[in-house]
Parts: sequence; structure tokens; C-alpha cells
Amino acid sequence: MKKKGLLVVVSGPSGAGKGTICKNFMELNKEMLLSISSTTRNPRENEIDGVNYNFISKQDFEDLIGTDSLLEYVHVFGNYYGTPKKWVLECIEKGKDVLLEIEIVGAMKVKEKYPDAILVFVLPPSLKELKNRIVTRGTETIEQIENRMARAMQEIKTIEKYDYFIFNDNLTRAVDDLEAIISAEKNKVNRYSQEIVKIYEEEL
Amino acid sequence: MKKKGLLVVVSGPSGAGKGTICKNFMELNKEMLLSISSTTRNPRENEIDGVNYNFISKQDFEDLIGTDSLLEYVHVFGNYYGTPKKWVLECIEKGKDVLLEIEIVGAMKVKEKYPDAILVFVLPPSLKELKNRIVTRGTETIEQIENRMARAMQEIKTIEKYDYFIFNDNLTRAVDDLEAIISAEKNKVNRYSQEIVKIYEEEL
Repeated sequence: MKKKGLLVVVSGPSGAGKGTICKNFMELNKEMLLSISSTTRNPRENEIDGVNYNFISKQDFEDLIGTDSLLEYVHVFGNYYGTPKKWVLECIEKGKDVLLEIEIVGAMKVKEKYPDAILVFVLPPSLKELKNRIVTRGTETIEQIENRMARAMQEIKTIEKYDYFIFNDNLTRAVDDLEAIISAEKNKVNRYSQEIVKIYEEEL
Repeated sequence: MKKKGLLVVVSGPSGAGKGTICKNFMELNKEMLLSISSTTRNPRENEIDGVNYNFISKQDFEDLIGTDSLLEYVHVFGNYYGTPKKWVLECIEKGKDVLLEIEIVGAMKVKEKYPDAILVFVLPPSLKELKNRIVTRGTETIEQIENRMARAMQEIKTIEKYDYFIFNDNLTRAVDDLEAIISAEKNKVNRYSQEIVKIYEEEL
């Protein structure tokens, strides 16, 4: 049975731990492909072009927008971030599964353009814990942190648009949950019922 | 978050291996409860009342039917088989997951009475392999086997009414698939989105 690959979108409030879950998941699931976002922002010291991001010019990014070549993009603090469409859709056609780790707004856009996408929302153990994590990072002012918390609550309210949630109070369990979600999606009848019947009919 | 238990219905053509999958699954998942069917047929030599079936009288069974106390029942070769409703629904209310291993007709009836049920269809590796398994059992005539094969094909055509399929070409993988399906279902947003939002709102 020829199967298309799955497009799995992992999203959630900043600080909920989606990056760590995806990183650990990718280490354990070598056949999964991770989509690299394109951005116009400058690379940070330890960032590598083509690994953390594809670092491209503003002109190139706007060309991608103009030719509808992005699955989603956002414009934040003067910089663009987006997901190249062609690579993702080609991988899926070839039967490869692709993981996207993106913000809530982007996830909604992906679902619009590609309704078969599987949306996974990573939940922090609590808002208090989320705040602790952001405070510990030490990169933001108190006001920025308060804004972030308010946004996190707003983001959690969008969860009904997602297919699955992962409660990130334990990293190992969270990664196991993501693996189970992807495994179960591969066994969903609605994707394959006609092909399944055909396989057995051809035997008769 | 208070969660209801899941009702997981494992079904499929006779000989596809649903019994073995469920047995192995139950051994690895002690917190899952297995529903014991009631029947009016006589116990076979190695069968234990309350373990393989609840063996009850025809009168008692018809009383269960009359009082709508069965989640599903069938009448085959002069005998009744059915799933007691009260026990199953009580377990689910208490948050326990319940596994039913039943025939296709019964599975359809369960979905009607309890739409939240998760229906899993066990597929044989091929019709040829299914035939081999039934022939090897040595309990049926050639005509009975041919009838069974025709019925198996008819049954496979009902797969679109199921939520998931398990392709039983490898028992370990089949059991893993069932575990992943149940795990993923526990992480589905649609069952819990309002409760999730409430948990975080209460923190504010």
C-alpha cells in the first residue's frame, strides 16, 4: 500500500518545551524529516545556516511570498520566518513524514493550506512553571514576561483547533506521546480504507 | 483533569488474529479491563465461567435483551452472545479503559449505542494467509472454509466504518500498534479541550 507521508506540526506557547520534545524525538526517529524554516534575521553566534534556519535575504523571502512558495510565514520584530512549501510537499508525496516545529499562528496557516496536517499542541505543566522557565532563561524584562504569559493563555485557548495535546511535565513521556500519536495516525482507516479493500479484492 | 475511560473495540474477520493480539495486549497492559461476553452456549472442556465467558441460561439472556442491558448481542447457530452494558459503562465512568473483542456485527452495534467507542479492525496479512490459518485449525469443512473466506471479504469492506486498522503480519508490531492507538486517543484534543483551557484559567 503506497502511503503519503504525514505532516506533523508541533506547536504551543513559547517556553512550553516544543523545541526540546522535537529535538529528542528526532534523535530517536531517524526516518522523520525536520523542516528547516527560512528567516531574514541574522544568525546568532552558534547558529548554522541550513541547520537551525535557512538564512536568506529580505528580497529572497519576499519573492517566496510573491510566488506562494511558503506553507506559512510570519513577520515578527521586523524579521520574516517561514516554511518552504515545495520541499515539505515533495517529501510527503514520496512517503516521508515531515515534522514542523512552529508558532501557533503558523500552525493555523499550515492547517488551512494542508488540512491533512496533524496539529499537536505542547502544554506546559502549569502557567507558574512556564513563567519559571522564562524567568530562568533570563533574556526578558518583567514586562516582557508578563506579556508572554498573557499571550500563552490566549494561545492555550486555541487548543480546540488542534488534533492532539501533549502535556509536557515529563520529557520522556512527552516524546513517547508524540511517537504514539504518529504511529496511531499511520493506522487510521480514513486515510486508507479504499486502498485496503482493493488490496484484498485483487487477491480474489 | 478527570477523564472518562476509553471503550476500545477490537474486531475483524475470524482468523485474522484479534484474539491473540488482545491476549498479548492484556498481558502487557494490566490497567486495561477486558469485557467478558455472556453466552447461552455450553462451555467447552477448557473454558472457565467468568473467564472465557459468563455462561448463562437462555431465559437470563433474554431478560438482558428485554431490559436493554446489553451493549450488543448476536444470535449464532442457536446461541446468544452479548456484552453486558452496565459493567462496561460503569468502568468507563470511573475512568477505566475497557477492551472488547467482538465480531463485526457486534462492533457496529456498540458504535451505534456508544459513539465514543474506538473501533479497531484487525486485518489478516492476506486472504491466502487467512485461509491457511483456518485450514490449519482443522475444525471446518472445505465448504465452511469457503463460506468463511467470502464472509471475510465482505467484512473487510466494512472497514470504512472503523477508526483504525491493524495489519496483523507481525504479532509484536500489531500489539505495539494497539498500544499506540490507545495512547494517542488519550491525547486527543476534542475529548478534553474545554477542561484543558479551564485548568490554566483557574491558575490566573
